[in-house]
Amino acid sequence: MKQGFFITLEGNDGAGKTTIAQACVERLKALGHEVVYTREPGGSRIAERIRDLLLDPGNTDMDARTEAILYAAARRQHLVDIVAPALEQGKIVLCDRFLDSSLAYQGIGRGLGIEEVERLNRFAIDDFMPDRTIFLAIDNETAMARMGRRGEKNRLDREDDAFHQRVREGYEKLVLRDPDRIVKIDASGSIEEVTDAAMKVIESVIYG
Amino acid sequence: MKQGFFITLEGNDGAGKTTIAQACVERLKALGHEVVYTREPGGSRIAERIRDLLLDPGNTDMDARTEAILYAAARRQHLVDIVAPALEQGKIVLCDRFLDSSLAYQGIGRGLGIEEVERLNRFAIDDFMPDRTIFLAIDNETAMARMGRRGEKNRLDREDDAFHQRVREGYEKLVLRDPDRIVKIDASGSIEEVTDAAMKVIESVIYG
Repeated sequence: MKQGFFITLEGNDGAGKTTIAQACVERLKALGHEVVYTREPGGSRIAERIRDLLLDPGNTDMDARTEAILYAAARRQHLVDIVAPALEQGKIVLCDRFLDSSLAYQGIGRGLGIEEVERLNRFAIDDFMPDRTIFLAIDNETAMARMGRRGEKNRLDREDDAFHQRVREGYEKLVLRDPDRIVKIDASGSIEEVTDAAMKVIESVIYG
Repeated sequence: MKQGFFITLEGNDGAGKTTIAQACVERLKALGHEVVYTREPGGSRIAERIRDLLLDPGNTDMDARTEAILYAAARRQHLVDIVAPALEQGKIVLCDRFLDSSLAYQGIGRGLGIEEVERLNRFAIDDFMPDRTIFLAIDNETAMARMGRRGEKNRLDREDDAFHQRVREGYEKLVLRDPDRIVKIDASGSIEEVTDAAMKVIESVIYG
């Protein structure tokens, strides 16, 4: 069934995922590839409605497990609506956040446990794993400074430094846990440097 | 922690759950008990927003797994907001639909499998199981006739007869699978007869 390549980008908010993803998309298109850039949560009609619920700053009373489950729901619908069809058409899908975001943010950041959150997500993704995952690693100060330049903050942006630090450490654990799939890249360099490093990973997947 | 009694009502749409629950609430109050009647999906602010997504007849493109996950999310938030606090106050909670609805509707009705859907829901309820579950059993023709007397139909009401028949058979499987917790009651009789039978089950729990 699956014929394209499924690459996910991960990292703390402010790591530069969107910027790097879009630079990679341009380069891949220039190389003649068909590429779909998409991001979680959201990306399709129902998934966007779940995203609204998740990111609404008014939902301060949302339980941590509810949050984890809603991310899994948005992931499922986005996978069915956007990712799977593009892969079946042989495209390269670059997806900004996927499974590992839930493991890092809800599993470690919220303290629900990696294994428990992974079990939940296995139901959602039905063993539909990325071919490769790029983890954009950045120190928290730089990430926070980049975040500070953004306007409106959503519900998760508003979490304290300790939360974002736990997420950062969570990603490091995930790399150790799944080193064949997750490739860590230093995201503190220039856009061109980081894009070069990300492209090396992507090319190693698509050219085998 | 948990001190009250947690009773859930289950069955196909049209089985009479709401009517019987409310009759039981009246009788329990007359006996001097503190009772909370509540229903899924929904029951609290965030849970109602998830309910809106689930029952919106426009969401015909909702994947079956997304549906199952969203029910689990609504269940979690409702449990935290409504059920657990009432139980901690020593109240009797009568809950219209809970875990078994997902097992019957999504596990059997949608064909996702009882075990898979139960694993998903274990994350949501975190081992917070009902003390007893009353399954109001009714033949599909009677249920459909009762449903027909209602106005607006939601997304699940619109499913075909075969779906509702599978759900009905799903509940029978659940009774066989967990006979200590789930008590099947014939719901074809008069409101008074069915309420009498349900009250017997509830009294056996609260008086031990």
